[in-house]
Amino acid sequence: MVPEIHIVSPSEVPYYRQVYEQIRVAILSGRMARGERLPPTRELAGSIGLNRTTITAAYELLENDGLIKSHVGRGSFVEWANRVDWESIIAADENPPAAPSALISFSASRPSEMQFPLEEFRATCREVIDSKDAANILQLGPASGYEPLRRFILEQLRSRGEAGENDDILITSGCQQAFDLIQRVLAPRGETVVLEDPVYPGVRSVFQRGGARVIGAPVTLRGARSGVEVDSLERIFEKEHPRLVVLTPNFQNPTGTTIPEDARKQILELARRFGVIIVEDDLYGGLRYFGEDVRAMKALDEADDVILLGSFSKIAFPGLRVGWCVGPKHFIARLSEAKEASDLHSDQLSQAVLLRFAETGRLAAHRKKMLAAGAERLRACIQSCEKELPEGSEFTRPEGGMNLWVRLPEPLDAAELAARAARENVSFTPGKYFAVSRPQAHGLRLCFAAMTPENIRYGLQVLGVIFRTEFARARKQRREPVPVLV
Amino acid sequence: MVPEIHIVSPSEVPYYRQVYEQIRVAILSGRMARGERLPPTRELAGSIGLNRTTITAAYELLENDGLIKSHVGRGSFVEWANRVDWESIIAADENPPAAPSALISFSASRPSEMQFPLEEFRATCREVIDSKDAANILQLGPASGYEPLRRFILEQLRSRGEAGENDDILITSGCQQAFDLIQRVLAPRGETVVLEDPVYPGVRSVFQRGGARVIGAPVTLRGARSGVEVDSLERIFEKEHPRLVVLTPNFQNPTGTTIPEDARKQILELARRFGVIIVEDDLYGGLRYFGEDVRAMKALDEADDVILLGSFSKIAFPGLRVGWCVGPKHFIARLSEAKEASDLHSDQLSQAVLLRFAETGRLAAHRKKMLAAGAERLRACIQSCEKELPEGSEFTRPEGGMNLWVRLPEPLDAAELAARAARENVSFTPGKYFAVSRPQAHGLRLCFAAMTPENIRYGLQVLGVIFRTEFARARKQRREPVPVLV
Repeated sequence: MVPEIHIVSPSEVPYYRQVYEQIRVAILSGRMARGERLPPTRELAGSIGLNRTTITAAYELLENDGLIKSHVGRGSFVEWANRVDWESIIAADENPPAAPSALISFSASRPSEMQFPLEEFRATCREVIDSKDAANILQLGPASGYEPLRRFILEQLRSRGEAGENDDILITSGCQQAFDLIQRVLAPRGETVVLEDPVYPGVRSVFQRGGARVIGAPVTLRGARSGVEVDSLERIFEKEHPRLVVLTPNFQNPTGTTIPEDARKQILELARRFGVIIVEDDLYGGLRYFGEDVRAMKALDEADDVILLGSFSKIAFPGLRVGWCVGPKHFIARLSEAKEASDLHSDQLSQAVLLRFAETGRLAAHRKKMLAAGAERLRACIQSCEKELPEGSEFTRPEGGMNLWVRLPEPLDAAELAARAARENVSFTPGKYFAVSRPQAHGLRLCFAAMTPENIRYGLQVLGVIFRTEFARARKQRREPVPVLV
Repeated sequence: MVPEIHIVSPSEVPYYRQVYEQIRVAILSGRMARGERLPPTRELAGSIGLNRTTITAAYELLENDGLIKSHVGRGSFVEWANRVDWESIIAADENPPAAPSALISFSASRPSEMQFPLEEFRATCREVIDSKDAANILQLGPASGYEPLRRFILEQLRSRGEAGENDDILITSGCQQAFDLIQRVLAPRGETVVLEDPVYPGVRSVFQRGGARVIGAPVTLRGARSGVEVDSLERIFEKEHPRLVVLTPNFQNPTGTTIPEDARKQILELARRFGVIIVEDDLYGGLRYFGEDVRAMKALDEADDVILLGSFSKIAFPGLRVGWCVGPKHFIARLSEAKEASDLHSDQLSQAVLLRFAETGRLAAHRKKMLAAGAERLRACIQSCEKELPEGSEFTRPEGGMNLWVRLPEPLDAAELAARAARENVSFTPGKYFAVSRPQAHGLRLCFAAMTPENIRYGLQVLGVIFRTEFARARKQRREPVPVLV
């Protein structure tokens, strides 16, 4: 159905653009269906009281967008169909194209370049390259990592009770490599691995590519039992005898959930009972904006069952690939061997720069800014979700991290909606890309950390219109009786 | 037998030290056998005309070294036995301990820190961090590598005919990671891989850890047919149906051999005939000190059968982990996927620094210096080998690279000799650590690139004494009839 066009006058937005925008939303929201004929330009111009060339200009824009097609002598027809290449959007999530896109993107779980403390980075770099240790940094180094950085991180973790006398540390090329080494050493082909469901796809793909059997344990989105379901874990441990379980107790990607301390203790007890190694991914733990820190599972562990993963990349500079894993010496020794075979050792310039960045207090100062910025963004995201999401939606209320999870009411399909939203230049990643054992069709991830609060609000307004429109349409279709073919 | 002690006087070397050194060599070279009694200090002092405390000081040094043991009332006895931990020396080869050792080391196939152009590196770094692209470098990047670096290397290779229209490039964290990805994608568990024998152990271990079946093809050390034996390759290809063969056509590590152009063509023909992928490791190709460049197999390839590996780490800064692999697009696409699962992407700061180092001409200027230094070192090494090695030894005469291979006459065992040499603070890696299908017991690798010409000469003098002494002893033992036990 052709929408009623409302022209605001006077306005900074030209008339042809006002017409264009309103028809565009009508097509994208499904109010105008594919194949529907648009009114002739002369007719529409007359009915709104505008010049015919204004309407022609609007139709040309729509045609440029691929939303309509004009046939000489027959008129213009809605042409739009789902042509979004989701695989490439997902790939762009972790691997953005060289040229920044104009998207309002809820898709990237990473800090914004705008927040990088460039001057502090430059000063740090200068200090490192001018230091006496520069030649040492440029030479081949030990597989386990740049020694001063290893000592620094171990001491920090010890001061928080997250590393003990039995523990050692391996520096990795980001957390992704820690998962890769863990798969190869601890969960080779045929071993069973339990992941949170939904989970960050980079973790799932490492274990799947390595031939491990992957089982998802459901995540509760809200309330006192949020995070991975302990009862499900127990059933899976008992029945499937997994070798290890990967957990993200703080601000899990994609859900943003945090596992409460009592549940952490119960899981540790289960792991000990069933002989399961816990890999604790604490990528986001340093980014708590509200509430109280919960003790790391590694700190609560009394049985040497936990390997703790960390990284600088969510707080400082993701392009510098430095992460670490800390755990019982016998595990770390085997992981270090695999690391050596894999790439000898991680880049030492970045290790030295990040160490200096931390040692000089610059990291702490930067983190403080990140916490203030993150709090503002998270608040904007929660408020907009409350305001914009259709009735029946659920969403998590993280206290930190970079991600929030939305579960839309049935029958809304997040992947279909993502395709529509992308046409409005708003992107998010639908739940199915995080699925392990459950389809997650109604779920979606909103990454808020790299966006301005304004963009969060605007983006969620756009999503709200699309979601609500589609939801209303779906409910209407349900109410309409299906014609009986006889 | 206690050696005749010669005291040089006057000398900068104290008398006790002169006594110590001479007895030490006697023990290490085997002239004094384990359990043999040393003369009482008073007796030795009298016979040389020195003070008794001088001899006592020398014996104390020997005892500190673990070479002798003194028993009160019974005297001092030779205690030395092979206690050298070769595994740790090998590990130190590629992973040097934090504190530089005082060894004269022929063990490390890498440039010397002394040769690093630190000021040029610092200037390059400053330009990169001050550039407008700094924020981009610090953000997550594409799995295939930093785009400007990819373009730069591809263009260079194209200008030399080493990359064509069908080729693409993947930046890796050093060549080691390229091997790791190739194993995982092209030669998974159960596939057969052919390696040069002897080979760099880092390559062998990647394929063995990954469960591939590894077969060694013998390397001819000298003459017009040097390098991997083409006839053997043909037999292996025919019989074993390998998936791929890894070759180092220029200045192979560990032998220093170069495959002549006609042999390269024959191997390409064999690879095409039997459907074998060639991985061409060209880590050392940029380091030709004498003679003419031979065209890369990648440049001679007409059938898209070759993947070419390169790296900055042998010319510039090994601590910056940047290498690449170039080959047909369909291979590179699969390797890039594996790279992403493995560690998202390589460190971008180092990629940008090395690009700038190359773009500004600093790499070429530095390489020129490396070539002059390498030529001098290689010459010193060959001359000393000619002079010092025992009769019946063979050694390669590389025209570039960092390594020269020695084959000692039977029955000399390089591993035993390495243990003795290490006690004289001279290290090299015995052949068995490079072995694939043949024991290589008489072979050893001499890395000359990181040493001064003086140290090369001195080190080979020490090795010469040990080798010749041991060779003479072994021949004598052979001539002596073995006593018959009745």
